[in-house]
Amino acid sequence: MSRVSLTARCDTGGVNVYDIDDPADPRLDHFRDLNSADRRPDLPPRGLVIAEGVLAVRRMLASRFRPLALLGTDRRLAELVDDLAGSDAPYYRVSAEVMARVVGFHLNRGVLAAARRVTEPSVAQVTDSAHTVAVLEGVNDHENLGSIFRNAAGLGVDAVIVGGGCADPLYRRAVRVSMGHVLLVPYAHTRDWPADLKILREHGFHLLAMTPHPHAQPLAVAMAAVRNKRVAVLVGAEGPGLSERAMRACDVRVRIPMWRGTDSLNVATAAALAFYERVRG
Amino acid sequence: MSRVSLTARCDTGGVNVYDIDDPADPRLDHFRDLNSADRRPDLPPRGLVIAEGVLAVRRMLASRFRPLALLGTDRRLAELVDDLAGSDAPYYRVSAEVMARVVGFHLNRGVLAAARRVTEPSVAQVTDSAHTVAVLEGVNDHENLGSIFRNAAGLGVDAVIVGGGCADPLYRRAVRVSMGHVLLVPYAHTRDWPADLKILREHGFHLLAMTPHPHAQPLAVAMAAVRNKRVAVLVGAEGPGLSERAMRACDVRVRIPMWRGTDSLNVATAAALAFYERVRG
Repeated sequence: MSRVSLTARCDTGGVNVYDIDDPADPRLDHFRDLNSADRRPDLPPRGLVIAEGVLAVRRMLASRFRPLALLGTDRRLAELVDDLAGSDAPYYRVSAEVMARVVGFHLNRGVLAAARRVTEPSVAQVTDSAHTVAVLEGVNDHENLGSIFRNAAGLGVDAVIVGGGCADPLYRRAVRVSMGHVLLVPYAHTRDWPADLKILREHGFHLLAMTPHPHAQPLAVAMAAVRNKRVAVLVGAEGPGLSERAMRACDVRVRIPMWRGTDSLNVATAAALAFYERVRG
Repeated sequence: MSRVSLTARCDTGGVNVYDIDDPADPRLDHFRDLNSADRRPDLPPRGLVIAEGVLAVRRMLASRFRPLALLGTDRRLAELVDDLAGSDAPYYRVSAEVMARVVGFHLNRGVLAAARRVTEPSVAQVTDSAHTVAVLEGVNDHENLGSIFRNAAGLGVDAVIVGGGCADPLYRRAVRVSMGHVLLVPYAHTRDWPADLKILREHGFHLLAMTPHPHAQPLAVAMAAVRNKRVAVLVGAEGPGLSERAMRACDVRVRIPMWRGTDSLNVATAAALAFYERVRG
């Protein structure tokens, strides 16, 4: 229960390390029952943001989300000790067994960080200095949502606008699949969908609607026409795609040329191809 | 238990429809306990191939895998009745409740088809008339594997070579994530990895190794240099990437230009970008 430093363990530097043996210790409540449908700490009233694994925890430490606490093994502490130098969050050091008892399953990434949510910027704020934004409609699958953020981060997208019908980007699985990039890529929810697309127009953005429709413009052609302009790439959920209302608010409909009579790609893959074409130059 | 045609149900055309009320009926054994670790019908000794959902079942019917039987609701039968016209496989029509009891969980796609495995072609056979192939090493995640097949199908890849350390493309989850495309895209396992890459060389293929290494050639540059040549795109598992042995067997190392200090994309996404650049022209 007390702050300790055992010789067989990693050098904890200036990190606030607490060894805990009792899975019922209330200090671990931020991490308890992560898969529970109703008590999960990333749901209200707690509404925390949970990062899993060394890479995502590092991204949280570099983000606007300040960890309240970390829970992890000694091995992961050793990997994170330099990153934690500037943080005053406690690191609750536990065995893998205690960790599994607390979170409710075996978590092989070995470390978690929990942060409070922060006030989200507005669409105008995240759009203001952006050259390329992604706009999502109906992306209600956490894995697709997380993948889109990962692809946005890797492929030069400056911000993400979360439109109607999307899942919560800060849900644990979305954070994980995004490799922590939802914590770093600026994003904002629209308040009035799709009417808020006018905010993008007011900022001089050209709106490209991704669709498998055969009459749409091929991606390379459409993107070449807006090379030096501000661009918003709109993608909709797999299956239904973008709503007709969202499509009508766009400047051009854009398709990825397809082979073998395939109808569509995964929404995160289609988004990645559009982002890639944008930065390909 | 007998062949029936009830007026309130869909017209079953020439399909062999059997109504079954008893989840223990042995005719349903091909579909039993799909999530069981040891009795799953897609494991030996049964070793079946299971397609889920209307789209994947249609692709199975169009593939070299001939369904032994189908299990599904009346609603899915109505959607599939035209596709099943040329098949003599029985359709076991059940309620959603019976279906859940048989497979072991609620399966909201509402229909399954089970086929026996067929003899796999050789690497030389699937390569022979191909212009572009994908080569996989260490892709041991069924979702990534399925996604790569889906992307290959949609983006003009003629065949997939399954190298060392990969998961089984015919496992149920890979079939599902591929949207049934693992049943249609020609593929072959190597027998000797990575030595069998010489078969691709003998067929005049240029071997491109995808890697995040900063000294690798940018994707657009590398692909432009092989525009009219036969190309093999090699991808490795997320994390470790391609092994050094596989890299050394390649002609060129290729990277996707990355932003924000991101280290890598998901392997299926990276593959999709390479396939896209290949057909983009």
